[in-house]
Amino acid sequence: MAKKVAVIMGSDSDFPVVKGAVEVLKSLNIPFEAHVMSAHRTPDAAAEFSKHAAENGFGAIIAAAGKAAHLGGVLAAHTILPVIGIPIKSSALDGLDALLSTVQMPPGIPVATVGIDAAANAAILAAQMLALSDPALAQALQSMKDDMAQSVAKKDAAMQEKVSSL
Amino acid sequence: MAKKVAVIMGSDSDFPVVKGAVEVLKSLNIPFEAHVMSAHRTPDAAAEFSKHAAENGFGAIIAAAGKAAHLGGVLAAHTILPVIGIPIKSSALDGLDALLSTVQMPPGIPVATVGIDAAANAAILAAQMLALSDPALAQALQSMKDDMAQSVAKKDAAMQEKVSSL
Amino acid sequence: MAKKVAVIMGSDSDFPVVKGAVEVLKSLNIPFEAHVMSAHRTPDAAAEFSKHAAENGFGAIIAAAGKAAHLGGVLAAHTILPVIGIPIKSSALDGLDALLSTVQMPPGIPVATVGIDAAANAAILAAQMLALSDPALAQALQSMKDDMAQSVAKKDAAMQEKVSSL
Amino acid sequence: MAKKVAVIMGSDSDFPVVKGAVEVLKSLNIPFEAHVMSAHRTPDAAAEFSKHAAENGFGAIIAAAGKAAHLGGVLAAHTILPVIGIPIKSSALDGLDALLSTVQMPPGIPVATVGIDAAANAAILAAQMLALSDPALAQALQSMKDDMAQSVAKKDAAMQEKVSSL
Amino acid sequence: MAKKVAVIMGSDSDFPVVKGAVEVLKSLNIPFEAHVMSAHRTPDAAAEFSKHAAENGFGAIIAAAGKAAHLGGVLAAHTILPVIGIPIKSSALDGLDALLSTVQMPPGIPVATVGIDAAANAAILAAQMLALSDPALAQALQSMKDDMAQSVAKKDAAMQEKVSSL
Amino acid sequence: MAKKVAVIMGSDSDFPVVKGAVEVLKSLNIPFEAHVMSAHRTPDAAAEFSKHAAENGFGAIIAAAGKAAHLGGVLAAHTILPVIGIPIKSSALDGLDALLSTVQMPPGIPVATVGIDAAANAAILAAQMLALSDPALAQALQSMKDDMAQSVAKKDAAMQEKVSSL
Amino acid sequence: MAKKVAVIMGSDSDFPVVKGAVEVLKSLNIPFEAHVMSAHRTPDAAAEFSKHAAENGFGAIIAAAGKAAHLGGVLAAHTILPVIGIPIKSSALDGLDALLSTVQMPPGIPVATVGIDAAANAAILAAQMLALSDPALAQALQSMKDDMAQSVAKKDAAMQEKVSSL
Amino acid sequence: MAKKVAVIMGSDSDFPVVKGAVEVLKSLNIPFEAHVMSAHRTPDAAAEFSKHAAENGFGAIIAAAGKAAHLGGVLAAHTILPVIGIPIKSSALDGLDALLSTVQMPPGIPVATVGIDAAANAAILAAQMLALSDPALAQALQSMKDDMAQSVAKKDAAMQEKVSSL
Repeated sequence: MAKKVAVIMGSDSDFPVVKGAVEVLKSLNIPFEAHVMSAHRTPDAAAEFSKHAAENGFGAIIAAAGKAAHLGGVLAAHTILPVIGIPIKSSALDGLDALLSTVQMPPGIPVATVGIDAAANAAILAAQMLALSDPALAQALQSMKDDMAQSVAKKDAAMQEKVSSL
Repeated sequence: MAKKVAVIMGSDSDFPVVKGAVEVLKSLNIPFEAHVMSAHRTPDAAAEFSKHAAENGFGAIIAAAGKAAHLGGVLAAHTILPVIGIPIKSSALDGLDALLSTVQMPPGIPVATVGIDAAANAAILAAQMLALSDPALAQALQSMKDDMAQSVAKKDAAMQEKVSSL
Repeated sequence: MAKKVAVIMGSDSDFPVVKGAVEVLKSLNIPFEAHVMSAHRTPDAAAEFSKHAAENGFGAIIAAAGKAAHLGGVLAAHTILPVIGIPIKSSALDGLDALLSTVQMPPGIPVATVGIDAAANAAILAAQMLALSDPALAQALQSMKDDMAQSVAKKDAAMQEKVSSL
Repeated sequence: MAKKVAVIMGSDSDFPVVKGAVEVLKSLNIPFEAHVMSAHRTPDAAAEFSKHAAENGFGAIIAAAGKAAHLGGVLAAHTILPVIGIPIKSSALDGLDALLSTVQMPPGIPVATVGIDAAANAAILAAQMLALSDPALAQALQSMKDDMAQSVAKKDAAMQEKVSSL
Repeated sequence: MAKKVAVIMGSDSDFPVVKGAVEVLKSLNIPFEAHVMSAHRTPDAAAEFSKHAAENGFGAIIAAAGKAAHLGGVLAAHTILPVIGIPIKSSALDGLDALLSTVQMPPGIPVATVGIDAAANAAILAAQMLALSDPALAQALQSMKDDMAQSVAKKDAAMQEKVSSL
Repeated sequence: MAKKVAVIMGSDSDFPVVKGAVEVLKSLNIPFEAHVMSAHRTPDAAAEFSKHAAENGFGAIIAAAGKAAHLGGVLAAHTILPVIGIPIKSSALDGLDALLSTVQMPPGIPVATVGIDAAANAAILAAQMLALSDPALAQALQSMKDDMAQSVAKKDAAMQEKVSSL
Repeated sequence: MAKKVAVIMGSDSDFPVVKGAVEVLKSLNIPFEAHVMSAHRTPDAAAEFSKHAAENGFGAIIAAAGKAAHLGGVLAAHTILPVIGIPIKSSALDGLDALLSTVQMPPGIPVATVGIDAAANAAILAAQMLALSDPALAQALQSMKDDMAQSVAKKDAAMQEKVSSL
Repeated sequence: MAKKVAVIMGSDSDFPVVKGAVEVLKSLNIPFEAHVMSAHRTPDAAAEFSKHAAENGFGAIIAAAGKAAHLGGVLAAHTILPVIGIPIKSSALDGLDALLSTVQMPPGIPVATVGIDAAANAAILAAQMLALSDPALAQALQSMKDDMAQSVAKKDAAMQEKVSSL
């Protein structure tokens, strides 16, 4: 059975950004669960979830958090599943705090960090991991990549008109 | 009985810095325990320690960690004791990563952050908290403060000679 | 008699942020005074306040200031009470100036720094200090913490619907 | 047959850092190839490698580069294999340039970024991906994780002596 | 025949900024082509364009990109034409990511970087390069420079009234 | 005769900020001239102005500029009058570029830098310099300082009502 | 009688940097006093010094401090003499903390900030202020400036040989 | 006759870095002059040089400076020749000050900025500009590029042995 992706956010106020990951997972038909769990406010729930994630059928965990973004690290501490961190930009410091808190993990416990607020990329990265043993998903990812290239090519063609009308 | 201070470091490689906290606690005759516990490598031990710290006679917890320094936050998640964070400078980013990872905590779970590598200040801050209900300790802190002032005054006097000999 | 908390802000324009601390103190029934005092425009008033804060029944001082945020340091220079600093974000540099000016204190004079604009956390930290000798307050803090956890758990449950409706 | 990991570095001067990844891969018995390929000096070689990496038996690509670290991005542009980026600290800016150049990828093309110079973590992350379909490797990763925890526990025990001898 | 300038942007969402370069090129009567090409989504198209740019009559390439802005570097990897990079500010980090990703190129492959969002300056720089062998263009650049000076002088004169009316 | 203050801005778009300096100078009855001069677009005019500023009756020069803010440095290169720099925040990097470009002058040629956009402070600093040989101006500065203190004291008094009405 | 310059440093460990200011003052025959006074450890001494500095014959105050460098601000709070701040680089953050803590002063209380560790420039700036009413000092400053220019011109001439011998 | 490149450095202490540019120019047989000229200490010499650079046979100007690096901007203000800026790392801020002071030029006066201390790249960029009308130089640049690629390929081959001997 296909492995699921867990999408964990530290606060439901992160959902407008995290939605981008959910949409990619849906479009690739990857089963997933979305949860609100906090490294600081519900640390036991987060730890429990992570400890049992592999046996519960998950293949990757996406963790989105802002400020001193510990969620990815806390989840990674309790599992050998790959954990993907999305640093969320909040009201100060332009996301730099969340980025450093997510990516600068100590030896032994990596968090695979994507760009600030880059929720779609987190989902694509999870899909790339699952696709290692799922040829159909690999195919879907390749199609998505080809579509992106065609979309850029179309915009390139359209640019000539845009420029000549200046 | 006097409350103890816990001094937790994420790695024993942090000890050369953390020693500064231990020395202040000793000089103030504050009982303490020093531990190596990692938010990421021994998360359960850290959580257990924190959950039972109050009932085990601790009055404050000092947490020292570098890089994506989650230790203070993880300990604070499991206790209502005040947690003091020392961001440790490591090989890159000059301590900024540890500072932001320690201080930028989400609403509800503060970590009282001192300066980068400022271990002595962490111990003084813990002492200030305990001194709220310990007049003798308050007296000792005031003496330490007066001594510092006198030491600066002596250096001021010595500066005149230093300068005239240039 | 219960110790009071002093909430000092460098300018009354900081009040929209500082209000978050006042609300927490009220909700926990902690007696407090709020003041506008400037490290630079009323330095003597600030020094006087701090020198006499302990004898006037205060147990902790919260200092909120922006830019070259010296208020916490100036207050800490004159007391052995714990001083909690809230760095306030202002029009440039996204709060980094206030954060570094507050947290990077020299040896001997700590300021317990919370996150940028994290006024509620400053009040919780003050409460944690006072609760060391006030079991009822400790109980109230624990309840607040439990409520936070339950609130997150509810949001987790609600998230499933949110996601399925995408 | 087990999938290989590619370890690509932008310059052989990165090897003292990258070695940390190689050592982890060896200790986990994961087959790998190490290459020097530059996004800027041998862009065609890098592109060719990446385009054929999947069919050549690779399951993940690790890319280590400093300064304007484009290597991870260039490799990711040509494959749907997961690409892991190690930002390398160089003589200026303390690794911040490499970190931002690696992690801030545009929508559609993620690079799974680990901490600055965190080569061992890059290898562990690659192993976690491959372990999704390799139970023996998963077991090995879990053992490595357990060993780390025990090592920290030993250091915790040793700390008591260290402290009492101060 | 006069050499052309290529204006490449990583995404058509960069056009509102890049337009500033197009306008300068038009005003100086420099032939140009504008394209949308992505270092990550259409890497082969970008490489092909750059490899043949010199033989196709281009004398300079302007590359505008945001976030982990690799476009300039990727184009420079395939040509000895001078490549001018415009770092584009995006939603986080205030353009610092794009600046460092563009300017911190490794030895051998420079990208001539202008300021964040400084599209007009990129076009002027391209014109300065072409003017080395085009005296009429040199004259036009000198006139533009003289006009700027006169415009500032006029504003200086107007300032006196502005100030006296305060 | 009283010495004048020169207020030079690099662009008239800086005037909304620089106005703060003009208002302080007017309120202190300090004679001044305001000019638009650019270190880059009218370098000769700026150099000429600075070379003759002392003989033309100026006692201090205020220079306001954004981005790579060279104006203060260029003016300081041509005079021994004190030059005060106001770094102006522009569309990217939150004023950090202008701050570093203004303050980090090489040995021999200082620019007295005030905070980002701190135009009023630049005027007060100029007044402090002129007041060294102008007792009436010194008196006026002291009054302004006393007024500020009283204004803060009033706001302190008003704060009690504000807080009790929460 | 000539006005004196006060050179105040927060710690005598700052003297190796501050010495550069002392040397310039000596070479210009400007009378001065050097003191060690701390904004945090001897705040009353610093305040007293500043309050009486004008009547005690000082014309400018130089304040050198590192980390959360409040010394300049504390001194400026108590005087209308111009206060010049030297941000001192310390063990972390490369001087950025001291720079922001010194320069980002609130409205009303400027500190004339020079570059990080730029002690000689602080002394030159003080001399420029005093020279406004001291023609002999103005002459000495002009000579120093002319000497610098000649020294650069000599180095320019020497460069040709240096280069040809490569 | 072939156009010359001017290599201007703000201080002869920059020569150890700038030497990298001189060596590239020599290896490409490009005629050049090296000068020490300071934007702040010899501003008139710098302005004069730049005003007459075109008529004196120069085709590009390389400017190397540290801290508030104005040299590139000052030279660019007086010429329409392309000016290439090398930000030099100095004792504080890791080169960020010089980078921002060089690259963030205002509209109308670009400086083509290369990486921090990237002297060789500045020379290659100058060569690329001159090569637009010098086919032999273009050939030489292409050869240098090919050699770099071969050198990387050799290192790639050698890496296999390095790794297997671990």
